[in-house]
Amino acid sequence: MSIVALAGGVGGAKFVDGISKLVGSGELTVIVNTGDDFNHLGLKICPDIDTICYTLAGLANPETGWGRCGETWNAMETISRLGGPDWFQLGDLDLGLHLERSRCIQQGLTLSQVTLQICQAFAIKDRVIPMSDAEIPTLLLTDEGELSFQEYFVKRNCEPKILGIHFRGIEYAKPAPGVISAIQTADMIVFCPSNPWVSLDPILTVPGIRNAVMVKKPVIAISPIIGGRTVKGPAAKMFEEHGIKPSAFAVAEHFKEMLAGFVYDEVDKKLDNKIKELGIKTFTTNTLMETQMDRVRLADEVINFASE
Amino acid sequence: MSIVALAGGVGGAKFVDGISKLVGSGELTVIVNTGDDFNHLGLKICPDIDTICYTLAGLANPETGWGRCGETWNAMETISRLGGPDWFQLGDLDLGLHLERSRCIQQGLTLSQVTLQICQAFAIKDRVIPMSDAEIPTLLLTDEGELSFQEYFVKRNCEPKILGIHFRGIEYAKPAPGVISAIQTADMIVFCPSNPWVSLDPILTVPGIRNAVMVKKPVIAISPIIGGRTVKGPAAKMFEEHGIKPSAFAVAEHFKEMLAGFVYDEVDKKLDNKIKELGIKTFTTNTLMETQMDRVRLADEVINFASE
Repeated sequence: MSIVALAGGVGGAKFVDGISKLVGSGELTVIVNTGDDFNHLGLKICPDIDTICYTLAGLANPETGWGRCGETWNAMETISRLGGPDWFQLGDLDLGLHLERSRCIQQGLTLSQVTLQICQAFAIKDRVIPMSDAEIPTLLLTDEGELSFQEYFVKRNCEPKILGIHFRGIEYAKPAPGVISAIQTADMIVFCPSNPWVSLDPILTVPGIRNAVMVKKPVIAISPIIGGRTVKGPAAKMFEEHGIKPSAFAVAEHFKEMLAGFVYDEVDKKLDNKIKELGIKTFTTNTLMETQMDRVRLADEVINFASE
Repeated sequence: MSIVALAGGVGGAKFVDGISKLVGSGELTVIVNTGDDFNHLGLKICPDIDTICYTLAGLANPETGWGRCGETWNAMETISRLGGPDWFQLGDLDLGLHLERSRCIQQGLTLSQVTLQICQAFAIKDRVIPMSDAEIPTLLLTDEGELSFQEYFVKRNCEPKILGIHFRGIEYAKPAPGVISAIQTADMIVFCPSNPWVSLDPILTVPGIRNAVMVKKPVIAISPIIGGRTVKGPAAKMFEEHGIKPSAFAVAEHFKEMLAGFVYDEVDKKLDNKIKELGIKTFTTNTLMETQMDRVRLADEVINFASE
């Protein structure tokens, strides 16, 4: 069994953690959004890769879904005291990773090489690959001007209205080594319940990835929208700002030309005919992952659905 | 009263802390060695400035004399786990300062400007000025090859034999703004009980500083060598490797053309005639600063001695 999952941050991390518990070493490859990556305090920070790695390593903070459990905040305390930029909270355990990754990249390693080192050090049995080794920052054109993703997401708390989304430099980027071959040899491809606009679209826009996904079936997506809302993050708001009513149907339609199957929450069952009319097979279940057990159950259901 | 102190790390920090307790705001200016500064994990680290600032701010770790009290080591734990360089221990509270200083320098601030900001944020009432805003790394030519100061001091635990000491680029460096004017307007200048070879010599070798010190009297030095040994660090070993018997006398002789007075430990009283023969007035007392009270008492004695 070979599964490729396309993932963003917290929602994606929870779902791939469920898959990871069900498959053997090396059977799961997670291709991770790097559009949220940014340079801060001289460090290269990769929020989605880190959330995925911490979660798969069992090191994630269960309260927040991101960051490390047992974290301390002493470096930030000093930065605040010195009047430095403290709008992006970096825990001490977490900082060690940013420092070491930045050092390795400075020394000439690629992001995918460093990510592999991190996975090995954390004894992660799955493959975690950034979508690209190139820097492809997601820029948001808003009513307050152009914002980087973290400025929009953390500093401005997703409040500005989005007028456009731009993945800077993506037309010149290449998928990271291993991305295309993993997709080509996969038995199934899953779009995690991540933000379509700023988590999955960046991955699918890296030249070569969408085409590789298109030839490979089955492709299954899990809706990050439940009852018209997101569990976390601005996906529903982004649909609205694109003039689209946020719903599981809207997610299915967003990805329709790639999907064989679509998994969404049973509270949205009434949308079933509409989604099926897109030519997509459907499966409904409880998609909210509140416990570790929810993750495994949902992953198991998705794998079974894909196998049908 | 205007006092200028030339200082290195722990010994210098303890002594200037004593002076600081005795004088008013802005009356003490500490000119600090930056030869030990280095870049590590992409951060600019200034061990002596930090030891001085933490001590004057009452934030220093009383056990070690360097680093912060109440420190945690979580970032280093991650770096170790990832196989990164963990030979130079950086606490989390401390890391915050290195991150913010590096960020400010990246943005174009000078080291002396950032040091001023740190002093203000830490409510330090004294002036702390790096000897220069230029990078002047102390390089040690040893029997194991050329080592940077921290490689020699921390990584190699001062074990290699020193064949030569080089302050790279010092001939092109300028004193930081305020250094020369502070010396010129001082009522007294103190050479702290710091390593003559790698703490005080770098400061005195920055073009302009030695000449400014020479015209200004009184200049008082405090011996870092007590009973032929140092309290901390490789000063005694460095005298030996220069073919000089380590002693308070050796320290007095090292600085003789600049000194009006010399303070050394009463255990070395037998050296008094020899030191006086150098044309230097002497004062002996207990120079070991074990308690906070020792620092203030010694500082008081040195100030009184200088006033005579």
